[in-house]
Amino acid sequence: MRILLIGATGTIGSAVRSELSQRHEVIAAGSGRRQADVTVDMASADSIAAMYSAVGKVDAVVSTAGHTYFGPLQELTPERNELSVLGKLKGQINLVLLGMPYVNDGGSFTLTTGILMDDPVAGGASAAMAGGAVQAFVRSAALEMPRGIRINNVSPNVVQESIETYGPYFAGFEPVPLSRVTLAYRKSVEGAQTGQTYKVY
Amino acid sequence: MRILLIGATGTIGSAVRSELSQRHEVIAAGSGRRQADVTVDMASADSIAAMYSAVGKVDAVVSTAGHTYFGPLQELTPERNELSVLGKLKGQINLVLLGMPYVNDGGSFTLTTGILMDDPVAGGASAAMAGGAVQAFVRSAALEMPRGIRINNVSPNVVQESIETYGPYFAGFEPVPLSRVTLAYRKSVEGAQTGQTYKVY
Ligand SMILES: NC(=O)c1ccc[n+]([C@@H]2O[C@H](COP(=O)([O-])OP(=O)(O)OC[C@H]3O[C@@H](n4cnc5c(N)ncnc54)[C@H](OP(=O)(O)O)[C@@H]3O)[C@@H](O)[C@H]2O)c1
Ligand SMILES: NC(=O)c1ccc[n+]([C@@H]2O[C@H](COP(=O)([O-])OP(=O)(O)OC[C@H]3O[C@@H](n4cnc5c(N)ncnc54)[C@H](OP(=O)(O)O)[C@@H]3O)[C@@H](O)[C@H]2O)c1
Repeated sequence: MRILLIGATGTIGSAVRSELSQRHEVIAAGSGRRQADVTVDMASADSIAAMYSAVGKVDAVVSTAGHTYFGPLQELTPERNELSVLGKLKGQINLVLLGMPYVNDGGSFTLTTGILMDDPVAGGASAAMAGGAVQAFVRSAALEMPRGIRINNVSPNVVQESIETYGPYFAGFEPVPLSRVTLAYRKSVEGAQTGQTYKVY
Repeated sequence: MRILLIGATGTIGSAVRSELSQRHEVIAAGSGRRQADVTVDMASADSIAAMYSAVGKVDAVVSTAGHTYFGPLQELTPERNELSVLGKLKGQINLVLLGMPYVNDGGSFTLTTGILMDDPVAGGASAAMAGGAVQAFVRSAALEMPRGIRINNVSPNVVQESIETYGPYFAGFEPVPLSRVTLAYRKSVEGAQTGQTYKVY
């Protein structure tokens, strides 16, 4: 398969790229901060449209990208919340809305949410919001995807490799290895299910 | 209690207003299309801020408002999806973020989602997205609300009184009477629970 992976330069994306590259052609997209095959700002619908027209037809689109705002609810302003809305929420949904014509018959979309939408922590309300939106969108959009295209999302627990960055938020959570998380992306891309949230908790 | 009800002129809002008015002072807010005590455009954070400064302190904020886009996924553009993002999603979340200083100790917020986030239908992906976002936000924000303020959301099935408008989308759904839906708002406002989604299905 020809797979477009947005967020390929990140913690989860790098692992997904290694896993999928064993059997597929993976086109790596990132924000431009680190080296990738294609650059995109998923917070901009125009930039997403330009990425698809540069990349052309693919069999699968996988997103392991999506910025969110973390911080105390008391400091969460509409402007800060907008970071999560633009990045993880609308960014990922627009990857689907604008990407549909570029995905071959029987292809798939795989998006990323996260455990905070189910199992909340202090500081995570904005991230939870974005994940909840993407999960519900995926479940509903699956009913109407054209030409046998499937759509799922992977919701990882905090990953072991991110404990230094996110650990303080996740007291008592059981971190999962990236090797388990990448399996869920493989199941979504190579499997036959649609409308699913693969919870790696 | 002194209760600010945004969406008071709508189908659900009118019923909630009648129910809560029996025991409380209800300030009715609407978009201005129909007569209300206060006018607000919840799609604008500035308008929400102006509403709160006009209304002052309250014991509860209830939202039964929130526009969403309904229509085939194939016709769902980023621009059309923005109607749901601005109205039901950010609109309701901004009612909380901007309203916190105006809610008295031990007060509450009650937002509105809907069955489509759990039980999807064709045409409902954008509405599902908005509901999923609000539900996850409520669950997470409840952990950090200051001064004993609570937050819940009510997720109604299609209501009997809306069958003429929404019926074609909801084949085989079992419509619920407004009288059942209003009980959930009463439970949220007068009860002691927080972080809950009251599913009236
Ligand atoms: N790590 C965890 O423990 C964990 C657990 C659960 C869920 N998640 C979720 O999984 C996703 C990825 O997490 P991660 O830890 O792998 O993040 P990460 O290491 O920060 O990587 C983020 C990736 O997204 C790209 N990106 C960021 N902003 C972008 C934009 N505006 N447009 C296009 N690409 C953009 C980055 O590109 P550049 O490298 O070019 O900046 C990078 O490839 C996030 O949504 C996160 O919430 C993570
Ligand atoms: N009806 C159902 O069967 C059902 C079932 C499940 C969930 N829901 C959800 O419940 C909510 C209310 O539904 P409804 O049927 O009662 O809707 P409705 O009859 O259309 O009433 C909508 C209310 O929201 C107000 N409103 C609309 N746009 C606004 C804006 N930008 N700023 C401020 N106020 C605004 C309207 O004010 P004006 O009158 O001034 O325009 C009205 O009071 C919606 O989120 C809907 O998705 C409804």
